[in-house]
Amino acid sequence: MSAITRDEQTTTVPFSDRLAEAVERKRTQLVVGLDPRVDLLPVELRGEAGRGRAAAAGAVERFCKGIVDAVAPYVVAVKPQVAFFEALGGDGWLALEAVSRYASEAGLLVIADAKRGDIGSTARAYAAAFLEPRGVEPPLADALTVNPYLGTDSIDPYLAACRRYGAGIFCLVRTSNAGAGDLQDAVLSNGEPVWRHVAGLVERWGADLIGERGMSSVGAVVGATVPRLIGDARRSMPQQTILLPGVGAQGATPADVARAFTSGPASALVNASRSVIFAYRDTEDDWRAAAGAEAARLSADIWAAAGW
Amino acid sequence: MSAITRDEQTTTVPFSDRLAEAVERKRTQLVVGLDPRVDLLPVELRGEAGRGRAAAAGAVERFCKGIVDAVAPYVVAVKPQVAFFEALGGDGWLALEAVSRYASEAGLLVIADAKRGDIGSTARAYAAAFLEPRGVEPPLADALTVNPYLGTDSIDPYLAACRRYGAGIFCLVRTSNAGAGDLQDAVLSNGEPVWRHVAGLVERWGADLIGERGMSSVGAVVGATVPRLIGDARRSMPQQTILLPGVGAQGATPADVARAFTSGPASALVNASRSVIFAYRDTEDDWRAAAGAEAARLSADIWAAAGW
Repeated sequence: MSAITRDEQTTTVPFSDRLAEAVERKRTQLVVGLDPRVDLLPVELRGEAGRGRAAAAGAVERFCKGIVDAVAPYVVAVKPQVAFFEALGGDGWLALEAVSRYASEAGLLVIADAKRGDIGSTARAYAAAFLEPRGVEPPLADALTVNPYLGTDSIDPYLAACRRYGAGIFCLVRTSNAGAGDLQDAVLSNGEPVWRHVAGLVERWGADLIGERGMSSVGAVVGATVPRLIGDARRSMPQQTILLPGVGAQGATPADVARAFTSGPASALVNASRSVIFAYRDTEDDWRAAAGAEAARLSADIWAAAGW
Repeated sequence: MSAITRDEQTTTVPFSDRLAEAVERKRTQLVVGLDPRVDLLPVELRGEAGRGRAAAAGAVERFCKGIVDAVAPYVVAVKPQVAFFEALGGDGWLALEAVSRYASEAGLLVIADAKRGDIGSTARAYAAAFLEPRGVEPPLADALTVNPYLGTDSIDPYLAACRRYGAGIFCLVRTSNAGAGDLQDAVLSNGEPVWRHVAGLVERWGADLIGERGMSSVGAVVGATVPRLIGDARRSMPQQTILLPGVGAQGATPADVARAFTSGPASALVNASRSVIFAYRDTEDDWRAAAGAEAARLSADIWAAAGW
């Protein structure tokens, strides 16, 4: 059985089905986040990165490709964090394009972590930037993280890309950071926290994008750092694939996220970024070997915890 | 009196004071949004734009520079909408950098409309991308629009750039689009809508960034399409510069926004995008002349309505 990649656009297999196929074939729900902080690059690349932004972008590209090679057997997707590429300007963006293409050719899904949110006419441009074919080139990514603050019409262009090109989105619902509660946990007049209201919106946005495996191509981002919330989010959004950041450097464990998987083996994805890509900092190993070993370990732990 | 530009970083004059100085010197509170939709470019540029993304980025750059030339006498800032540049990939990002530099050299402030919002470590990268010096180059922009959904620690890196480099931010509070109410108008248990809760957060984030003119470098985005809300937002955030999109193509008039200016002549900025940059579509004029005429007209109307 071969991977269904985004090069086969004409089939427009829904993102959720492409994801489920890949999870079951590779037996992993791990996503590795590509957060290429220049100051944390291996020393062999860091020197190069000190010679201006173009050189830094080149070092970042080589680093990310090396990570892709190392983790590809153990992950279903990579999640480039767009900010770290944009910090290197136009050269950084070109590196993002090159890394995305490389990951896709390695058979991985690409989730662009950009958390975009803007009014409809602008969201259409972001959809074009991330989720639509670029001339003869395939889309930059298979899926995009988005922000719900501007409401339905700010999400519609991404939903159109999901329908037309088999793309996916993951909408922020309850994030993993310290300040998440400032707005997301504010309590509404019906007693619900803001994040659960957003979960309802996400469910509605994804209602007509349910694939053959029963999951929607409109997923949700729920931080893994508050285990109690994971079960709550799972119940609120039974057909949303939940993307769980926060495992590893942010402190959550594979066991914490187990309850996210009750809707099926591909009903949640666990993301780890720094703990994998910079694993070499805690070992004597080559940076690629260290990342591969950590990804293999995490992937197996999550698969076991998920219980499928 | 000469403009205080972001090239004079060592002075770190607060953004709010740089803005107030420019508003009073040029007698305008108009901001022109650079939303370079390729399909709406003047015919002389559209043909060029049809030859691939690099050519399209070149056409976008020429268009935006022409708009900057045309509107510079009548506006205090331009607001490039980052999505339209990102839709053209790495070449688009390079065009964004070139347009920003060009506007800065024309004595305009640059507000990057990117609406970024992410966890702290990622927000630091976005702050570096938009608000911090890039090696020997000045920052890409003087100010950045940001999204509040992830809370305080997602905003902190931008506040650090405000303090250190005299940057500014405009945080989304109540936007101008149809779906804004889906989340922003949800009512909290204390009877307040979500957006007013966010207004309180914005006020807190900007409390230690008040400049000599009494306004904070942490501003707020409030859509001009709901006039009743403008007065309410003004009272909720007396020291926030309010950036008002929605005038022109989105339907609001200069009179609608008058009540935003009660905290001073530079206490609000009015943004118009498509109605200015694509004004040529409703006239026989050259596209630059049409944009300049529309900017001049709007600027005078707003100054009169503001009543300073």
